[in-house]
Formats: sequence, structure tokens, C-alpha cells
Amino acid sequence: MITVGMIGAGRIGKLHVDNLLLNPQIKIKAVSDIATEHLKTWATSKSIPVLTTNYEDLLQDSEIDAVFICSPTNTHAEIIEKAAMAKKHIFCEKPVSFSVEETLEALKVVEEAGVKLQVGFNRRFDPNFKKVQNLVRKGQVGEPHILKITSRDPEPPSLDYVRSSGGLFMDMMIHDFDMARYVMGSEIVEVSAYGNALINPEVKELGDIDTAIVSLKFANGALGVIDNSRQAVYGYDQRLEVFGSKGVVTADNCRATTVEVATVEGVVQDKPLYFFLERYTQAYAEEVAQFVRAILDHSAVICSGNDGLQAERIARAAQQSYLTGKPVKIEHGFVVN
Amino acid sequence: MITVGMIGAGRIGKLHVDNLLLNPQIKIKAVSDIATEHLKTWATSKSIPVLTTNYEDLLQDSEIDAVFICSPTNTHAEIIEKAAMAKKHIFCEKPVSFSVEETLEALKVVEEAGVKLQVGFNRRFDPNFKKVQNLVRKGQVGEPHILKITSRDPEPPSLDYVRSSGGLFMDMMIHDFDMARYVMGSEIVEVSAYGNALINPEVKELGDIDTAIVSLKFANGALGVIDNSRQAVYGYDQRLEVFGSKGVVTADNCRATTVEVATVEGVVQDKPLYFFLERYTQAYAEEVAQFVRAILDHSAVICSGNDGLQAERIARAAQQSYLTGKPVKIEHGFVVN
Amino acid sequence: MITVGMIGAGRIGKLHVDNLLLNPQIKIKAVSDIATEHLKTWATSKSIPVLTTNYEDLLQDSEIDAVFICSPTNTHAEIIEKAAMAKKHIFCEKPVSFSVEETLEALKVVEEAGVKLQVGFNRRFDPNFKKVQNLVRKGQVGEPHILKITSRDPEPPSLDYVRSSGGLFMDMMIHDFDMARYVMGSEIVEVSAYGNALINPEVKELGDIDTAIVSLKFANGALGVIDNSRQAVYGYDQRLEVFGSKGVVTADNCRATTVEVATVEGVVQDKPLYFFLERYTQAYAEEVAQFVRAILDHSAVICSGNDGLQAERIARAAQQSYLTGKPVKIEHGFVVN
Amino acid sequence: MITVGMIGAGRIGKLHVDNLLLNPQIKIKAVSDIATEHLKTWATSKSIPVLTTNYEDLLQDSEIDAVFICSPTNTHAEIIEKAAMAKKHIFCEKPVSFSVEETLEALKVVEEAGVKLQVGFNRRFDPNFKKVQNLVRKGQVGEPHILKITSRDPEPPSLDYVRSSGGLFMDMMIHDFDMARYVMGSEIVEVSAYGNALINPEVKELGDIDTAIVSLKFANGALGVIDNSRQAVYGYDQRLEVFGSKGVVTADNCRATTVEVATVEGVVQDKPLYFFLERYTQAYAEEVAQFVRAILDHSAVICSGNDGLQAERIARAAQQSYLTGKPVKIEHGFVVN
Repeated sequence: MITVGMIGAGRIGKLHVDNLLLNPQIKIKAVSDIATEHLKTWATSKSIPVLTTNYEDLLQDSEIDAVFICSPTNTHAEIIEKAAMAKKHIFCEKPVSFSVEETLEALKVVEEAGVKLQVGFNRRFDPNFKKVQNLVRKGQVGEPHILKITSRDPEPPSLDYVRSSGGLFMDMMIHDFDMARYVMGSEIVEVSAYGNALINPEVKELGDIDTAIVSLKFANGALGVIDNSRQAVYGYDQRLEVFGSKGVVTADNCRATTVEVATVEGVVQDKPLYFFLERYTQAYAEEVAQFVRAILDHSAVICSGNDGLQAERIARAAQQSYLTGKPVKIEHGFVVN
Repeated sequence: MITVGMIGAGRIGKLHVDNLLLNPQIKIKAVSDIATEHLKTWATSKSIPVLTTNYEDLLQDSEIDAVFICSPTNTHAEIIEKAAMAKKHIFCEKPVSFSVEETLEALKVVEEAGVKLQVGFNRRFDPNFKKVQNLVRKGQVGEPHILKITSRDPEPPSLDYVRSSGGLFMDMMIHDFDMARYVMGSEIVEVSAYGNALINPEVKELGDIDTAIVSLKFANGALGVIDNSRQAVYGYDQRLEVFGSKGVVTADNCRATTVEVATVEGVVQDKPLYFFLERYTQAYAEEVAQFVRAILDHSAVICSGNDGLQAERIARAAQQSYLTGKPVKIEHGFVVN
Repeated sequence: MITVGMIGAGRIGKLHVDNLLLNPQIKIKAVSDIATEHLKTWATSKSIPVLTTNYEDLLQDSEIDAVFICSPTNTHAEIIEKAAMAKKHIFCEKPVSFSVEETLEALKVVEEAGVKLQVGFNRRFDPNFKKVQNLVRKGQVGEPHILKITSRDPEPPSLDYVRSSGGLFMDMMIHDFDMARYVMGSEIVEVSAYGNALINPEVKELGDIDTAIVSLKFANGALGVIDNSRQAVYGYDQRLEVFGSKGVVTADNCRATTVEVATVEGVVQDKPLYFFLERYTQAYAEEVAQFVRAILDHSAVICSGNDGLQAERIARAAQQSYLTGKPVKIEHGFVVN
Repeated sequence: MITVGMIGAGRIGKLHVDNLLLNPQIKIKAVSDIATEHLKTWATSKSIPVLTTNYEDLLQDSEIDAVFICSPTNTHAEIIEKAAMAKKHIFCEKPVSFSVEETLEALKVVEEAGVKLQVGFNRRFDPNFKKVQNLVRKGQVGEPHILKITSRDPEPPSLDYVRSSGGLFMDMMIHDFDMARYVMGSEIVEVSAYGNALINPEVKELGDIDTAIVSLKFANGALGVIDNSRQAVYGYDQRLEVFGSKGVVTADNCRATTVEVATVEGVVQDKPLYFFLERYTQAYAEEVAQFVRAILDHSAVICSGNDGLQAERIARAAQQSYLTGKPVKIEHGFVVN
């Protein structure tokens, strides 16, 4: 049995709670949030005994084995360090922080403490992408030559969200940078980024973009490209392709049903599933299950602190490339587990 | 809150228990089975307080509002009648019985008792087929002219199972007869059945078949056809098509992933999901949720006792057609709710 | 080099002329039709020297090696006999005649004359269906158990056409009966037909139907089903499926492009190709090329007089089954080459 | 009627001859090639009266209205100029030349001569891509934001070919640069190229690459990406996608048949059509038909000299970007018709 505390009970924190409750080996003892009044009914319905505004209560609770950090990004690094020092295993939502240096600092503390840290790149646990990764690893497409990722949200976030998001590369494309490393099994050594605000020009006034294409060079010589848009009106567009010397493997969008209607107008299928909660339902459940398994089995997590760090480094390089109009090389000096 | 008792804890009974436990409005108080020793650990892990070999214990328990009948088919009718007289709402696995007369008798008792009876035609709750039914009902394909159902199992049952199954039409195609009525919104008035034992000739020696095609005439003049096989080596083949004056709507098989691999050998996709537990996961959850909702809201069940009765009548007519080599007309005299 | 004469220059006769002209080994010397005035410009543009209202002119022309019979069905048998006696090889549009006896008579004359006779079941030459046939023959799906053919026209013919068509089974489904024999490699020994006039009730007043489902029993024990509709508003629906002990092979509809458009409304693809001229363009060219090759190489035709005869026998049995409401067995006594 | 001369009778020249012969309004009077001995039988079979080693014979023949230039690229510019001065309409294979300056010079001569010049970007005439272009132009996907082109050959050319090809950007990706301008309806103003020799390292020793990804900036603010590989073992991979404010339109690969085989191994479809002759059969026929129409109707060609020039400018910029490791801006000063 593992006893868990949840730090931050917004949409994603609540989702993790539901997935944890599916597991008979898990007990959720406490939830902390900056405000708890509105959470009381919810916590009761989930039989969670402790509700607090102070996350340190969770760290001081000796019964708690692991914490989930689902608070705003700018609080992650500090909480990670304190949790690690309190010897709690840590699941932290992505990104670890907005600053590579801060992330590095936090990872060092985690390493010294010897606790597990899993970063919330949920897409690694999607059955489609997992299968692609597995096929590539087993050599089904031979040596990988070209990676293509399309990742487009169904609707743009509010301008308020944009302001504190860290920018498209750090907030959105960071998932794709992680996926690129994961499926290719090779580090990204250079990026070249193009971006624009084509959906909403106000985004540009805030110093951000809503449309981007980033080319990638991998350490093994392969090439890649990621395209992002904040608004695909037809639904969450999440596709992946790895092309290699022996073939190509693709993962397409998921749909609610296989139903097709053919009339005089044409042949119509379902749109892709709406957004991440619909598309990544299984992935969210699986990433939590996997984290629990890693603790119980003393095995490695699938998505480590180092994975979080590298994705942030790439995101920062992409941002720099976009701003300078030039390709940017990426150093991969420090590697943590 | 509803308190439930489970009669019969085989594979399907246990599946219903899991789905019931997802619902915070449900409490499972008791499980009965002919043998309980092997069920103790399981019942404890599910926090089910009562485990008994006598299903009548459940009927006499005044706390229990509803029972699920998941025992062998030849026990259904008797249990339904006793449960109805004990004023329990009833969810009964299909078929209600092997005899239309017995089913009719049981339904009369249910009607008099004024309890709800839902029959376990789980496929009505599959998102694909539900969407087809809804589109047809809304007139998206105009007047329905032709119905086509393909329903093939991935592997044949044991000869032992075959012996007590009631035959392919009553055991397997009965699902498709129900689906036919459901999506077409019209009664089947005549069937013409062809069958053979092509997978295993021993099946024929037992008086049964493993491959069948049944043509249908509907009350509204439309035509239909169902094909069944006990062994589709590529997986559970579950397809549906309604063709009408304004177009056609189809539901295709479901696959575990959208992954495609293209090599010199060809382009390969996932096979259909393996069998009913994989394909109808959502449907099983939804049929239970819907039954609970019908009790709580005092609303009609989606799949009534009459639906069970009509499907059995059609199955019996198909069997007769197969045996006589002639089309058989179907009477729809008594209709219960 | 082969010199050809065309008997009947309607839509299909002209199409064959165009396909013949693609072949440098073919010379078209003469065309006959009941009226020729409107054909003069056309014949000149195709460099066809002789245009006549008397098809016997073609039979008496010693330069002509082969004739194409594209006149109305009720003239086929007589022309076949005369052409055979004149020692011309014969390509005849389907059906050979409206009467099995008449067809049988004509085939005997052909056999005695020792000329080649190919019947125009163009679908055998469609690349999709040819591939299915080939895969089945090579055992890719093991022993065939179930055949399914869907064949629906995009728009119904005129009532005038219906009057002289010989009825849906002889005019339309005859193609599917031939396809069934072709892909299954086994004779049809029994049919059970359901039909109705669901598109236009006036069709029923003429003694015909516009919607039909026919179940099939094959000599090898396999089962099959064909569904026909005279009006699929979304285009020409031509699908085929052979299910067997080792798998299933399907041929789907063809579309003009692979283009998909995804918007808020859904994901839209092209409709199936409109009708037989679009769908079977390649098949029409190939059947003519194959006939020419059979003459030049002294090899067997792909679709023989016997194939025409058997399809007619099945069509007649289906008609009888529809009228009597009972399955009808089919005799396969006389077999010609 | 138009009389045509063919300059260069290699694979593509012969293909154009076959397509020209389908058109009753075309007469092919003469063919020139550096060697003619091996062409005699072919020319006779096509009824081409004149065969010469001197292409100037064609230019001096006053009966000839138009010439097709299918000789090696390094001869194109000179022949174009001479043909234009001889007042012949010109169809020239891509690229116009290996040097933007030379192309520019040739285009000026064409403009002064007032003859038509069509450049052989055959893919504009592919029904799939034409439909995409048309849908984008009509606003079906709103404002275009992202363009994606995948273009991969099934097998690499010989090293000899690579040596004289002008490099991957000028020889292969030039098609995609043209397609990008065509479907987006906006000029490319900057490119950023990544390349590598992943299939055959010897290609790099020759100063060329076999794998490339090029990011694009369009004048209207949209972004794009093209990926190329010289070896897709599963066939000719030719896909196109335009994503915009109202949706996305994609064109997928074409296959020989729609046949699918499902067995225990998986579900297998046809591979993409093998190479350009298979995939672009219709496109090649249509580009020639369109050129003839433009001459007869005095209308504009679909793919002009300026289109050839701009594609070369972009290819040169991509080459420069690859060599310098930096994005390169593209000037669009001179525009010819």
C-alpha cells in the first residue's frame, strides 16, 4: 500500500485523484490547495480525510509516501526540493519549472535525496504513441531518419493564461519535444524555429505566438519537425510519424466512434476527440499506475526528472531560435536519472 | 442510493460488479453463487459483505433494491419470477430463457409486480451502434431499406458450451436480432436462415451450426441480413450498416490503436479488438449505469423484457427456418413493457 | 492483327470501340446499328470504314475475325448463333439472353462452331475484385465460409428500361451472381430471395423490384449473401467480402481522390465513384484486351459462355424464389466451355 | 489541329508522346534525340514520320507549332531560347535550368517572342492535389496557416544521376516548392533547410544529401514544412496537408486497390503506388492536354515560366541554407508570365 498526498486540486489534480482511486493499493490521505472551501464536498465524496491550505502539512505527515505536485508551474521547483528533503516520492506536472537552472537545482536535490521523481508527460502513456515507440525501438522501421509530430489544440487558451504560460514552446510544444526524444531514442542537438500569431494577433503583443514549426536535428543524424497550432477547429490533432530505412510508422487521431455516414453531400466521419481529457484518458490513468508501480517495485520511472530537464532545454532553445531567427544548438551536459 | 445483489458471479457477473462499483450511488450488499469458496478473496477485495450459495437470501433481504441475474440461462425465468414477487428490480442476462413460453410467463409476473426488468443486450450501449441507431431515428439516412449486420466471434466455444448453449441462433445471433430491431425501429416479420458447421463438423453432430446467414423482412417493408461465424481468426468482427433512401450509415470494428506500419511487405493496421470484453467495455459500463438511472429516475429501461422476448421469438423462428429449409413468419402478439 | 466488327453502337458499344482503338493489334472494320445516320460523324472520327444497318454484312465480311454483340438482349442469342456459324469469335454483352433455354441453344452452336465466346461480365476484370479472387484462390483466407456482395446503383433506371430489363435479378444482380461464382470458385446450388419496391412503388406494378437480398448456398458448403438497391444516393456502391477459415478479404468502393476535409462539421471524404463507367473504366479496357489476347494466343477466355449460362440460371432461380417465397435449388447439368 | 515536335525521347519524352497520341487534335511530326538508331521501331509504331539527331530541324520545320523539351536539364535554356525565336510554343521539363540567371535569360526571350511556355511540374495536375488547391482557394479551410508536404521516392537514383542532378533541392524538392506556392497561393519568402545523407553516405561525398527537412515562411505569414527522402521502401510517399483557420485538408497516398486482408497477423492494405509513372499517370496526361488547350484557346498555361523560375529560386535558397546552416530570405524581383 502507498499513501499519497495531492498538492493542488485543480482540473488535473482532481483527474489524478480519480485515477489513483481506481488502484486498490493506493490511499489518498491529504489534499492541499491555496483555497479549500470549494473542495470540501469533493474531498468528502472521495473519502479524503485531510484537506489543508498548507502543502507542508503533507510533507510533514510521515504516513505519506508520495506527493503529486499539480500546483502552478512557478511553485514546482520549491515544492520538489522540500518534498525530496522530506523523503517523499514525487510526481510533478510538466514543466518542472520555467527556468532550466531552477529545474537543474531541484533535480540535484532529488538525486541527493534518493527519491523517485516522475514528470507528467502523459503522452508517453498513450497506447498509440507507446506502440510507435515500441515498434521503433524494436527496429520495425529500421534506422529512424525523419520524425514528424503534429500537435494542435482545439481552442486557444485565454490571454490571461498565455501571459503566465511561459510561451508556446515551454507550455505546449514541450510535450512534443519530450515525445520526440522518447520515440527517437536520441537527443535533440539543434532546433530551428518559425512562429507567428495567426489566430489572434494580440498573442504577439504579449510576446507569444500561436502557430509554430520547429525543425530538429538529432544526435544520431536523423531530422525531425514539429508543428503546433493553438486552434484546430476540428478537434485535438495529435499525430506522430517515424520514417526510417525499413518503413514508416504512423499514429493517427482517435475518434469517439467508427461511424461513417454517406449521403449526397459526401462521406462523413467523426472528428478527432475534442481535447486532452478525451484523447488522453487512458494515458492519464496509465501514468499514475506506472508511477505507483515504480515505487512498489523499486523500478525506474518511465519519465524522469532528466526527461523534464531536457525537454525544457529544447523548449528554451526553440524560443531563442524563434527570437533570433537562427538555429540554436543544445548542450546536454548534466544528466540526472 | 441503490443497494444491489448479484446472482451468479462468473465472468460476466464479476464484470457487472466492477462497473457497479464505479457508481457512488450503488452499494453491493450480497453475492450468491452455487459455490462461494473460491469467491471469498474476491468478495472481500470488493468490500461485499454477504456471500451466499442461496440466491433467495438476496430476495429476502429488504435492503436490496435490485438484483442482477447472471446465473445459467436455464435458471433465469424462475429467478426472475421470484425476484419480481419479492419486488426487486431486475437486470437479467440474455436470453431470458430458452423457451418463449417460459419467458412470456416470467414477463407477466414482472408486469404484475410492477418492477423494472432490463435484459442484457449490451450492444445497444456501444457508442458506435448507439450513434447509428440515433442517426437512423433522426432520419439521416431517410427511410431504411437494407440492414446488414456482421457478427463473428474470434474463437469458437467448447463443445460442452455448445451442448447447453441453446444453439447459435439463441446463444449468439440473438444479439443481432435485438440490434436489428433496435436500429431499424421496426419488427422483424419473417426470417430465412441458412447455416452450416464449417469450422468444426462435430458441432453439427450436436445439432448445432457455427456459420449462418439469416435474411430478414421488417414490418415496414425493409430487408436485412445477418451473418455469424464462431471463428474469425483476425478478432471480434462486429459491423453494422443501415442503408436508406437518403444514404447509408456504417459502424466499423474498433482497434486498440490507430497505428499503421508501412514496409516492403504492405501497410499493416491493428486487428479488431479481441472479443466482447475488449470491444464492449464501455457498453457494459453504460448498460449498468443506465439501469441504475432508470431505477433512480423512474424512467424506462433501454432494453426491456419485451425486447428480450421478441429477440427470442426471432431466434426460434430462425432455428425453425434452418431446420425446415423454409422462411418462417413471426407473430408479435403479446407485447410487454 | 485482329479485325473486329461492332454490332450495336450504343453507350457500351462505343466504349468498347474506344478501348479496342487503344490496342495497336486491333482494326475496327465495321459497325452495325438499327439506325446509322446519327453515327456517321462518330464513325469517321474513329476511322471506321463501314457503317451499316444490317449486322449480317459484318458476318459475311471474311476479313472480320471477331464481333462484339452490344445490341438489345433479346437479339443476342440469334446473333450469336449466326456469328458462330460464320466462324467469328464473339464477345457478347450480358445477359446472353432472357431465357436459359435460348442461351443453352446458342452455346451449343458456339461449341460446335469452335469459336471463342466471351460474356461481358466486366467486373471480373476490376483490379480490386481480381485481387480478391486471386487471394482467395491462393488460399490467403483459407477455406471460404461466407461471401458478401453489396451492389447498389446510384440512380434507378427509367420505368421504360425496367419494362424490358428482364427484372432486377436478370438485369442487375446477374453481375453479382457471376462475381459470387468467380471469387468463391464453387457453384451456387440454392438461393433464397427477398425483394421489394422501396424506391419507387410503380416498379412493383410492373412486376419488378428495386431492392433485394438473396442468400446463397455453395456446392462446397459455404454461404453467401448479395444485396442490391437501384438507388444509392451517395454513388455506386460496389463492395465484396470473402470470409474464410484463415481470415477475411474485402474490396471497398473507389473514390476519385484521397482528399479529406476536417472542419467543425466533421471529416469529409469523397463519395464512391459515380457509376459503372467511372468505377469500371479499367475493367472495361481490360476485358477487351483479354478477349483479344485469348484470340491471339488461342487461350481460354476469362468469362465463358458457360459462365453466362450459370449466372442466368441463378438469376432465374432467384426470381422464382422471390415469387414463391421459398428457396430454390439450382441444377448445373450442362456445362459448356 | 496542332503539330508537335519532341526534343529528347527518353522515358519522359516517350510518356508525353503516348499522352499526345490520345488527343485527336495532335499530330506528332518529328522526334529528335542525340541517338536515334534505337528509336526507329518505336517511332514507326507511333507513326511519327521524322526522326533526327538535330533538334534544330524541328525548329526550322514551319509545320511544327510546339515543341516538348525533354532533353537533359543543361540543354534546356539554350533550346528554349532558340525555340522561342523560332516562334514555337514550348513545354519544358523541370527544372528550366540549374542557374536562376540562365532561366531568367531564357524567360525574357520567351516573353519577347510571345510564345507560350509551360514548365513540367506535373503534380499540379494530379486530381488529389488539384482538389486540395481548389478547396484552399475557395476558402474551405479559411486562412491557410500551416502547409505540410511529404515527398519520398521509393528508391534512390544512381550515384551517376546524383552527380549531374543539381542536388536534392533542385532535382527533387523543387516539385514540392512549386506545390507549396501552388496550393498556398502565396510566395515563399524564407527557407531554413536541414539535410543529411542517411541512406547512402557516398551521396555526401558527392556534395549532396538524401534526406531533408525544409521549413518555409510565406509572404502571407503562414508557415510550412517539406520533408524529402530518396528511399521510402514502402513506395512513393506523396502527401499534402493545408491547415487553416477553418479546418484542414489532406491528400493521402494512392493505392492500386482498396483490398484489405485481415488474418491473425494483422490487417494489411496495399502499399502506395510505386513511383511517379504509377502515381502521376493521370497528371501526366492532364498536363499535356492542358498545354494543348492553352494553345488552342489562347488561354494561360497552368504552370508558367515564372513558376519554374520561382521554384528554382527557392531551391537555390534551400541549398544555401543547408550549406550555411542559416535561414535564407528569397527575393522575388522579376516576375514573368
